[in-house]
Amino acid sequence: MVGTKKQAGDFAVAVHGGAGTILRKFMTEEKKQGYRTGLTEAMKAGFDILKAGGTALDATQAAVLVMEDNPLFNAGKGAVYTHDGDHEMDACIMDGATKDVGAVAAVRLIANPIKLARLVLEESPHVLLAGAGAERFAEKHGVELVEDSRYFDTPHRWKQLQQALKREKENAGKPQTQLDHSDDKEKMGTVGAVALDVRGNLAAATSTGGMTNKRFGRIGDTPMIGAGTYADGKCAISATGVGEMIMRAVLSYDIAALMEYNNMSLDEAAEIAVMKKFTELGGSGGVVAIDSEGNIAMPFNSDGMYRGYMLADGTCETAIFRG
Amino acid sequence: MVGTKKQAGDFAVAVHGGAGTILRKFMTEEKKQGYRTGLTEAMKAGFDILKAGGTALDATQAAVLVMEDNPLFNAGKGAVYTHDGDHEMDACIMDGATKDVGAVAAVRLIANPIKLARLVLEESPHVLLAGAGAERFAEKHGVELVEDSRYFDTPHRWKQLQQALKREKENAGKPQTQLDHSDDKEKMGTVGAVALDVRGNLAAATSTGGMTNKRFGRIGDTPMIGAGTYADGKCAISATGVGEMIMRAVLSYDIAALMEYNNMSLDEAAEIAVMKKFTELGGSGGVVAIDSEGNIAMPFNSDGMYRGYMLADGTCETAIFRG
Repeated sequence: MVGTKKQAGDFAVAVHGGAGTILRKFMTEEKKQGYRTGLTEAMKAGFDILKAGGTALDATQAAVLVMEDNPLFNAGKGAVYTHDGDHEMDACIMDGATKDVGAVAAVRLIANPIKLARLVLEESPHVLLAGAGAERFAEKHGVELVEDSRYFDTPHRWKQLQQALKREKENAGKPQTQLDHSDDKEKMGTVGAVALDVRGNLAAATSTGGMTNKRFGRIGDTPMIGAGTYADGKCAISATGVGEMIMRAVLSYDIAALMEYNNMSLDEAAEIAVMKKFTELGGSGGVVAIDSEGNIAMPFNSDGMYRGYMLADGTCETAIFRG
Repeated sequence: MVGTKKQAGDFAVAVHGGAGTILRKFMTEEKKQGYRTGLTEAMKAGFDILKAGGTALDATQAAVLVMEDNPLFNAGKGAVYTHDGDHEMDACIMDGATKDVGAVAAVRLIANPIKLARLVLEESPHVLLAGAGAERFAEKHGVELVEDSRYFDTPHRWKQLQQALKREKENAGKPQTQLDHSDDKEKMGTVGAVALDVRGNLAAATSTGGMTNKRFGRIGDTPMIGAGTYADGKCAISATGVGEMIMRAVLSYDIAALMEYNNMSLDEAAEIAVMKKFTELGGSGGVVAIDSEGNIAMPFNSDGMYRGYMLADGTCETAIFRG
């Protein structure tokens, strides 16, 4: 999945649909096919834009939007439930060419949080808007809100919440420390895309429902520039995994910094940042990353990561597990 | 203010009280003295803890808390007003020894946001809690909320809001792009502290009322790990300035990365990150930074930055302008 050297004028898009504990025994062929189809549809949306000469920014937004609308993924429709049975979503999009960035956090009534993040990028002097304030911003700019957050409900996420609440009850009295996220690997999920366009510009976009059973207005790594999402002139990265650890590791920018300051290739930098540093910190998850030559890296240290890439020549690969 | 080499067993604390357009002509001797006294009181609170063998984490919290309680500074009592005449505050504290971190965003009813950030670090599996959710977390842990956010009102911040609203009206129709923050330099302010304790551990803490006239639930760089606040085993950094640009630059972690990956000294890394890269990006502001040898760097590219440091031998310096 790496070292796919770009030719001049080439373009590419890579996506992830979350990383974590993906148990092979529960993964039927039908389920696998559903994820692969979802990833491919997302990539195709980005690919079509890139092929027509569109921007990496538009391509990543389009790819993420397709996954937000697909209830299989933990973003938009299909977002996980908060402790209170609600949905609070985070999203971020960053243009590597200009370093312009827009992000939203803890929004409840926005069908496609990635579109609102883009609107923040385009229309707000701010970078990150949160909660009801972000929704007022949306309304001011003519974005229609969903009537209530029941729009995001899905039976499988409801079941996940009930399981999480049951486990929480069983573990009552055992405080979970900040560095103990062993239980979180099953509760997470994020979608993201990175792209290179024909002009050589890069972009990254990420969207998530966060963590099942989250509470107290928890915000994760997705809308944190440099943690869950980052793009500049040399690389673009979208991360997925236990957000609390991705934030500590400043994981996405760490890859950019290793390339910039240590002269590493994208592949080397992503390998060191994810498989060595992030792993040693106790983090679980992975990234999709692309550089300005079209090289793609997708390291992860969890059991699986839904992922794929599509190149200018039509090459399309998707994968879930290792190897 | 730099290169103050540490002796074994030494400790040190450095603080800032915000950076921006600080016009000499409006700065009376009395005003200057007020800021210098405020900075010194904050440092003294941290110093006393460090001298007694306390942790860098406790020292930074104590220093920031003193500035939150001082209405001169834009944090806690004296926080700036939002567009709606309210106050929404962000804070973050990070332990370099463990990389444990706690942050809160857009809290309205917490007298000392830095104490709540510390509680998140100690008691929550999450890193960042926002808005009313963060306040519910506070209540659950026995933190008394202030009755309403009028607690934070001050006449001078109210005047700043009125001026900002007037300017906004005059500039109506001229959209402010993301990279045009020329007007923001007067609207910002943050307090922060970094410290090294006798065990050689580092910590960073930052607290802010954000930007005058902010709206739509805007969150700035302060609670973003690696942007406004960062600490690890080698350095601790707290930033202040136009948050939107500090986030894009991932400014605090950029200093850590330059040290780690480019073998730079703290002084060199802070100089490159702030005076070169951040400046070229169009950012305005500065940082206080300390390394594990007790070297302190305080670069800023704005007109002024309220700042100071206090060393184990009792040396105490404060400054506002350059030179």
